[in-house]
Amino acid sequence: MDVDEGESDDTRQALMRATFRALCDHGYADLSIQRIADEFEKSKSLIYYHYDDKDALLLDFLDYMHERFTEGMAEMERAEPGEQLLEFYDLVVPAEMDDEQASFIVALFELRTKAPQAPPYRERFTDMDELMKEHLARYLETGIDAGVFRDVDVDETAEFLLSIFNGMMVERATTAMGDRVATHRAAFESYVDDLSA
Amino acid sequence: MDVDEGESDDTRQALMRATFRALCDHGYADLSIQRIADEFEKSKSLIYYHYDDKDALLLDFLDYMHERFTEGMAEMERAEPGEQLLEFYDLVVPAEMDDEQASFIVALFELRTKAPQAPPYRERFTDMDELMKEHLARYLETGIDAGVFRDVDVDETAEFLLSIFNGMMVERATTAMGDRVATHRAAFESYVDDLSA
Repeated sequence: MDVDEGESDDTRQALMRATFRALCDHGYADLSIQRIADEFEKSKSLIYYHYDDKDALLLDFLDYMHERFTEGMAEMERAEPGEQLLEFYDLVVPAEMDDEQASFIVALFELRTKAPQAPPYRERFTDMDELMKEHLARYLETGIDAGVFRDVDVDETAEFLLSIFNGMMVERATTAMGDRVATHRAAFESYVDDLSA
Repeated sequence: MDVDEGESDDTRQALMRATFRALCDHGYADLSIQRIADEFEKSKSLIYYHYDDKDALLLDFLDYMHERFTEGMAEMERAEPGEQLLEFYDLVVPAEMDDEQASFIVALFELRTKAPQAPPYRERFTDMDELMKEHLARYLETGIDAGVFRDVDVDETAEFLLSIFNGMMVERATTAMGDRVATHRAAFESYVDDLSA
């Protein structure tokens, strides 16, 4: 979506919020422009004015998520070095999720499954993973610089951490984990402890 | 599928192989009983004789995968303690995948996305993760008993390792990782080194 003026910016925000709510309520499989329009306070024709189809809207939604994620990560930088990784964990895979959070993780995961067949989706999720990895690398560097962490290989460790987060998100979205959620959190804490200088 | 006799057993094997090939060729989204029948040397009516619909067949395919995975894991037990984790890594996320392996990981991942909405799929993937975790725990115990690994918390560490594998599989299936594949392998090796007694 081309944003030329403040008004368009507000429209995009409202439409992205409507897409978020529609994804939480219906999941990707049952999502339609009509269902997004039902959550949108402005006219449906305005959606078609800005987007050719549902995919164009969803791809912009992923870009919007990328922007929001970048903002959220900036907040995290204010945490103590050494605490950032655990705070990030609790943000991405909170012990208690309300229905909206759980539905949203599932919906994002459904969108991710379009990636193997659809290059624009593949590109977005590659970028999303790289952004996440970049931030994990920054927390590691901050910890090493502050003398809190050992001098580990930052690139390797960030890659490793990324797969822990992606794996945990997949498991939370597709299996009945029960008590395993707490076990995983404890294991992550031990891993971070082992990074100590 | 009820297997009462040897003949039925052969039929199931042939049908499971046909399902595997159809999933590799078409992915889950474009899969149909007809496409499975095209890969099956026996008659299509035999498929409907044993399965009510595509989902019943796919759920049995997941049970078959579970059985095959159990067999594959038994082989792994023969590796040296301390080597088992790395051999498992190379089996599950090989550095070089042929087209069939890559397509199959993608197809399994597509099936996994049915789990949030469909309890029978959720149950299969919960079992699959628990089976994988059990084997990871066994490799850890073998290593600890042999004095190769430190006395780590087996349950926590196995849970942690499981998410590393699931995360890596998701990333391989849905992003363009490039050189990150080798970085991840190196990170995994460092992690196993850090388990050393």
